[in-house]
Amino acid sequence: MSRVVLHAVVSVDGFVADPHDDPGPLFDWYFNGDQPLTAQDMADPAPGGLRVSRTSYDYVRPEWDATGCMVIGRRLFDITDGWEGRPPTGDHVVVVSHRSRPDGWHPEASYHFVDDVTAALRTAQELAGDGTIAVAAGDVGGQALALGLVDEVAMDVAPVVLGTGKRFFGSLEAQQLLEDPHVVIRGDRVLHLRFRVRR
Amino acid sequence: MSRVVLHAVVSVDGFVADPHDDPGPLFDWYFNGDQPLTAQDMADPAPGGLRVSRTSYDYVRPEWDATGCMVIGRRLFDITDGWEGRPPTGDHVVVVSHRSRPDGWHPEASYHFVDDVTAALRTAQELAGDGTIAVAAGDVGGQALALGLVDEVAMDVAPVVLGTGKRFFGSLEAQQLLEDPHVVIRGDRVLHLRFRVRR
Repeated sequence: MSRVVLHAVVSVDGFVADPHDDPGPLFDWYFNGDQPLTAQDMADPAPGGLRVSRTSYDYVRPEWDATGCMVIGRRLFDITDGWEGRPPTGDHVVVVSHRSRPDGWHPEASYHFVDDVTAALRTAQELAGDGTIAVAAGDVGGQALALGLVDEVAMDVAPVVLGTGKRFFGSLEAQQLLEDPHVVIRGDRVLHLRFRVRR
Repeated sequence: MSRVVLHAVVSVDGFVADPHDDPGPLFDWYFNGDQPLTAQDMADPAPGGLRVSRTSYDYVRPEWDATGCMVIGRRLFDITDGWEGRPPTGDHVVVVSHRSRPDGWHPEASYHFVDDVTAALRTAQELAGDGTIAVAAGDVGGQALALGLVDEVAMDVAPVVLGTGKRFFGSLEAQQLLEDPHVVIRGDRVLHLRFRVRR
């Protein structure tokens, strides 16, 4: 079984974006360093591409490389237009959605539209191979946690109070114990934390 | 001016207690060590008193000793019965409340009932002397932050997802940037973080 990691950048008050899905200053650390960070680490990334600090690069790069499959909600798919068929990490994406793939949308891309979280994780396990499964935070991530399908919670905590917005664990209302963090890395405008889920 | 610190123990999703004001597993670290932690560090604290790890003690003890005055909401006062007139830290308490001191309640205790947050912080500044002012998280703390009256945010993060409950920043909806944390200390069932508020 592939390891399932629930991940997002998050404010100190637990939000991954404002009410309009804008992450605002949460993403400052993606652009304040000198290490280009792209799906393939292109030598000459696009202008405006991610450039993180060395500290964050050394943490994020291996995690991205280890990803086999992403699991995301329909909203993130729609906002990003599915990254135009090229996911930022991994080769496969499972979209939790009652609606299917848009007509004619990148037919070659390994994107799979599945209508519940349990089935989505099962599909992701088939696709991920030796890689990890990265579940996007939000409603899908919170449901996966509540269903006992998450092994680790990875929070990139930005030193920002958002006050309101989209929550890391979505509308989850169940209590869940985690282990003490096994990763605590101090970046520039981000604190990288990882917690294993207590069974 | 005394330094103003907004503080609480908090879940990874930003809650300081469940909807019934029960902190539940957030407070495990207060009882899982061998260092007694009391207002006066009594050699023989009451049974069931706080006993924290050495790591947490070395962080918390100086902070408690440095506190001159606490600022709390009426709800915390009511839940704790004002700690029966003996605050856990500092010698003075300002309670933000439209209601005054209960008749006959510990007339000797330096508790001051003030009906808005700005006035409460002004009173706390008069009382705190050389000490710091510890503002309890929740609605009072969130309002103080929004009013620009907070210098530092101190979060003792427990590795727990609460899912719902009372929020660290109360009903604050304003965005606020913090500095990168200048304190990151890994305790046992707690991660001690401190952020200065960015001006």
